[in-house]
Amino acid sequence: MTSERRPGPSVRLRVTELRDDVERGREDRVVTEEPLEIRLQWPGAPARRVWVTMRTPGHDFELAAGWAVHEGLAPAAPGAVHGVAYCTDVTLAPDQEFNVVTVTLDQAPTVLPHQHDALSAGSSACGVCGRDSVDSALTTTGPPWSAGLPSSEVVRGLPDALRAHQRVFDRTGGVHAAGLATAAGELLVVREDVGRHNAVDKVTGARLLAGEPVAGACLVVSGRAGFELVQKAVAVGTGALVAVGAPTSLAVDLARRAGLVLYGFASADRVVRYA
Amino acid sequence: MTSERRPGPSVRLRVTELRDDVERGREDRVVTEEPLEIRLQWPGAPARRVWVTMRTPGHDFELAAGWAVHEGLAPAAPGAVHGVAYCTDVTLAPDQEFNVVTVTLDQAPTVLPHQHDALSAGSSACGVCGRDSVDSALTTTGPPWSAGLPSSEVVRGLPDALRAHQRVFDRTGGVHAAGLATAAGELLVVREDVGRHNAVDKVTGARLLAGEPVAGACLVVSGRAGFELVQKAVAVGTGALVAVGAPTSLAVDLARRAGLVLYGFASADRVVRYA
Repeated sequence: MTSERRPGPSVRLRVTELRDDVERGREDRVVTEEPLEIRLQWPGAPARRVWVTMRTPGHDFELAAGWAVHEGLAPAAPGAVHGVAYCTDVTLAPDQEFNVVTVTLDQAPTVLPHQHDALSAGSSACGVCGRDSVDSALTTTGPPWSAGLPSSEVVRGLPDALRAHQRVFDRTGGVHAAGLATAAGELLVVREDVGRHNAVDKVTGARLLAGEPVAGACLVVSGRAGFELVQKAVAVGTGALVAVGAPTSLAVDLARRAGLVLYGFASADRVVRYA
Repeated sequence: MTSERRPGPSVRLRVTELRDDVERGREDRVVTEEPLEIRLQWPGAPARRVWVTMRTPGHDFELAAGWAVHEGLAPAAPGAVHGVAYCTDVTLAPDQEFNVVTVTLDQAPTVLPHQHDALSAGSSACGVCGRDSVDSALTTTGPPWSAGLPSSEVVRGLPDALRAHQRVFDRTGGVHAAGLATAAGELLVVREDVGRHNAVDKVTGARLLAGEPVAGACLVVSGRAGFELVQKAVAVGTGALVAVGAPTSLAVDLARRAGLVLYGFASADRVVRYA
């Protein structure tokens, strides 16, 4: 899915839709997710890496310029950003070329955020294309799940089961939830958080601190399935990830490479299998 | 809202619901959002700060333990994490006490993630309670918005207007959108991205690179309004932020302090004003 030199905002792929007892193969589109590395330079200072974000390709210069303004690195006024360009670093591989941008400021920023990192030689090769990100995630994988997996009927029941446990959502409408379920659909633990990644961390931590196995047949999440969530499921050796929302391109890539069964758009009516 | 020593998962506050031409004051609950700093130590090594995340308080030890496992810092097996405790650092203020946890590993991790930071004396005071986060965000604010603000009728029309521009969402169902609108409801620019923060960065960057003023009457976003999004709106001096989803406690705190008008649960029928 990352073979085109300049990725578009969505990619086509084959999926399986499961509705009642019927399986149907079809084509689907998922939103493209790729890392973008932002480098910053100003008169008299060499370019330094300041941020890496997972983003949808397109409008990359705008993303970099807007991020710099929101971080207070450049004033919120036209002309504060001298220019933005794709990086011409000869060490970048072709599929990294459109994932690294350099923002040039007119003058040195008055403050640098905490996460700013020195740019060391060769470090640009780490994680700035989807393939690198997937390779890197595959270095931390749990043992493959060899016990049972949930049937599509069980999968379709999980969103409602999760919803029934969402106490904070009932009060605020503002949180994500994650739960670990058995192959039969029994929820072992459910956690809520403003951050969808935090809810998944809490589920794994709950099992770990209770002295229980952290891997399970099925992790179910109330939102979308991005790269980071699949990475967490793969890290502990989960069998299947069921998302109520849509998956991203990189999430599907990683799930397929890691042997994780990935479902999206799960509801009582239907569910779509992406990996 | 952060005056209790140990914050709960949601907080109560007064809001104004606007439906047709009727304004009604009522009580509402928003999900609590507070920073959590995770420190890591193992035999022979002093505690070091490894991550700060915005999270909903509760199950903090599970969050820290699960995060460490997902990052590959501890194996995904019971016993790998020796213990998790709230930090007893005497330099922490009372409202920071439950926002800093230390994870103790049985042995040194084989790999440390990039973002790991040395823990320097006194640095613990920065951004590990909601008040610090808000104070810190208020140091980067644009000039206050002095031009017109949208009426509640215009606000209720913005979600559908934004939705009409979401081309990638139509194909994938998997992206967030953000747009900058005039007080009359005209959308000046709309951008989509897998990351809601990226979509907002792209909107500001689009205006900046086009040589247009980056502040506007109204920023509208397709998802929830968390702290980070309000921070971006405040940084450029936006007049109002309209979210289709729910706001968080810290988002409301910051909006009120910064004088940003904050709307949540915006739809054609109704909208709720939080700040």
